[in-house]
Amino acid sequence: MPFASAEQQLIEFIKQEAGNQYIGDDCAILSGGLLVSCDAIVEGVHFLLPDHSLEDIGFKSLAVNLSDIAAMAGIPQFVVVSISAPADFSIYSLKRLFKAMHQFADKYRVKIVGGDITRASKLHLNVTVLGKENTNGSWLRSAARTGDVVIATGDFGAAAAGLWSLLQNLRSYRYCLTKHRRPEPRIKEALQLAAVTQSKGALIDASDGLADALVQISAASNVGMEIKEDLIPMHEEMRKAAKEARVDPLHWALYGGEDYELVGCVSAADWDLLSKATPRNFKKIGAVSSAPGVFVEKSTGERHALDMSQTFQHLKADG
Amino acid sequence: MPFASAEQQLIEFIKQEAGNQYIGDDCAILSGGLLVSCDAIVEGVHFLLPDHSLEDIGFKSLAVNLSDIAAMAGIPQFVVVSISAPADFSIYSLKRLFKAMHQFADKYRVKIVGGDITRASKLHLNVTVLGKENTNGSWLRSAARTGDVVIATGDFGAAAAGLWSLLQNLRSYRYCLTKHRRPEPRIKEALQLAAVTQSKGALIDASDGLADALVQISAASNVGMEIKEDLIPMHEEMRKAAKEARVDPLHWALYGGEDYELVGCVSAADWDLLSKATPRNFKKIGAVSSAPGVFVEKSTGERHALDMSQTFQHLKADG
Repeated sequence: MPFASAEQQLIEFIKQEAGNQYIGDDCAILSGGLLVSCDAIVEGVHFLLPDHSLEDIGFKSLAVNLSDIAAMAGIPQFVVVSISAPADFSIYSLKRLFKAMHQFADKYRVKIVGGDITRASKLHLNVTVLGKENTNGSWLRSAARTGDVVIATGDFGAAAAGLWSLLQNLRSYRYCLTKHRRPEPRIKEALQLAAVTQSKGALIDASDGLADALVQISAASNVGMEIKEDLIPMHEEMRKAAKEARVDPLHWALYGGEDYELVGCVSAADWDLLSKATPRNFKKIGAVSSAPGVFVEKSTGERHALDMSQTFQHLKADG
Repeated sequence: MPFASAEQQLIEFIKQEAGNQYIGDDCAILSGGLLVSCDAIVEGVHFLLPDHSLEDIGFKSLAVNLSDIAAMAGIPQFVVVSISAPADFSIYSLKRLFKAMHQFADKYRVKIVGGDITRASKLHLNVTVLGKENTNGSWLRSAARTGDVVIATGDFGAAAAGLWSLLQNLRSYRYCLTKHRRPEPRIKEALQLAAVTQSKGALIDASDGLADALVQISAASNVGMEIKEDLIPMHEEMRKAAKEARVDPLHWALYGGEDYELVGCVSAADWDLLSKATPRNFKKIGAVSSAPGVFVEKSTGERHALDMSQTFQHLKADG
């Protein structure tokens, strides 16, 4: 069963069944502007032991959740943490894991307010994050309009390159390894975006890849997009790794996933404000069009529609 | 590694490390009287497939969480649901699971507002529940005072008897099987308790057994307790099953766990109000004393301290 498409099917089913307005964005927005989201990371699916250290795993379990708050341009406040671990997992290991989570939470001024510890056959971390909306309200996937500028933070493909180099046991791709192991949620950038524009555009995190992020915004906003390969930020080290791996760097950038960068759409006027206020944190990667479909114009001039059958899937180590 | 004691050790470590006031009760209480708690249930630890149906599992994943809100005398409002399932788990099964969760949520007027679906080698459900405090505030484990009456809802030991009869493939113990498979959180009773007394006593849910609940309140409140076996509510069918299993029914009642009944302490005046307003929902099972230790007086007149080395542990099917 291709699990990504199963998830899509199930989300549709859940939306219909639950019959509520909460499901479909990176977080649910509850009364009082409370944001809530949860994400699990699972041994053999999202990380491998001992390739990933307990510190990496602790960091990542929080990073992926805080990234969902960033994707709403919100402010993370609290997390609850549920750890399931095998019976032979030592107290020492649990403490190392928790210390890493606590250190990461501190960095983002988030409090760990509760949790649960159970046994399981594999290590399994589930985090629920609570946050609040910024004063102008949440940025949603559905807010893109024809004529908007498509923007993104950071760079793409490096997390995929990092996973590749980890599995190849190549330790020299340090930037990519760090992007894979210790993703940083773009909280600061998201709040800057909201503060500078004083408005609400479209926003999502690229947890499942840039291609998926663009398609999700397009579908929710009922618009199309024209993206240019030359504008997609890619790190030099990722290009070098791609060459060694004989992969098109654009492939990793679009479909690699786990970059946890932000992807959004803002009006031309807001882009003008943003590029002056913070020229380094956001890059323009394309434009929103009225015609359906997300198209990428390659450096060669070739233009193709995104192939969502290549959408990011997690490690296939587990079943 | 005895996992229950590991959990205790780790909770202490987390309390110290996190250095915050949120951890230690059934829910964390956040600003605005927001209650939050999470609990995972795991295949092979909390349930067995196919002995437990998907509907049982869906119900239970919510029931154990709503029970934590009941334990604060709070009102549950929202849940987020994280499901991890093996790659060969069908969409049909996921839908059955979700339908059961939705049905249960509806019954308690709780909205499912978000979630996450990932792969894992075993079925794993993690639920985070959000709720609000009742108008008089939360009932805490630490509120018991010398002279209080120890009270409890429902009956004890039936869930353990139900698990035993399930594993023995004895289908005739229907009351016990239902108590094991479909525990009902005591939301209504908890709110009644708060409304009738218009005060705040001590409260906890007996998820890890009556003995554990009594010891947790005693420790948090720095008091002792005198409990009478003859006053502990036990169902006739549980006694019958205990006889067949050659187990002392008091053992199941104290250490069996998963009854999800409420255990609390109220002043003599509040007990007077409560026993008049709702004579059936709460029973007196003992008294709070100033001397340390929780003692049970058996029907034979014998008196012994609770043996916490016998504290409830989940199914030992997994490692």
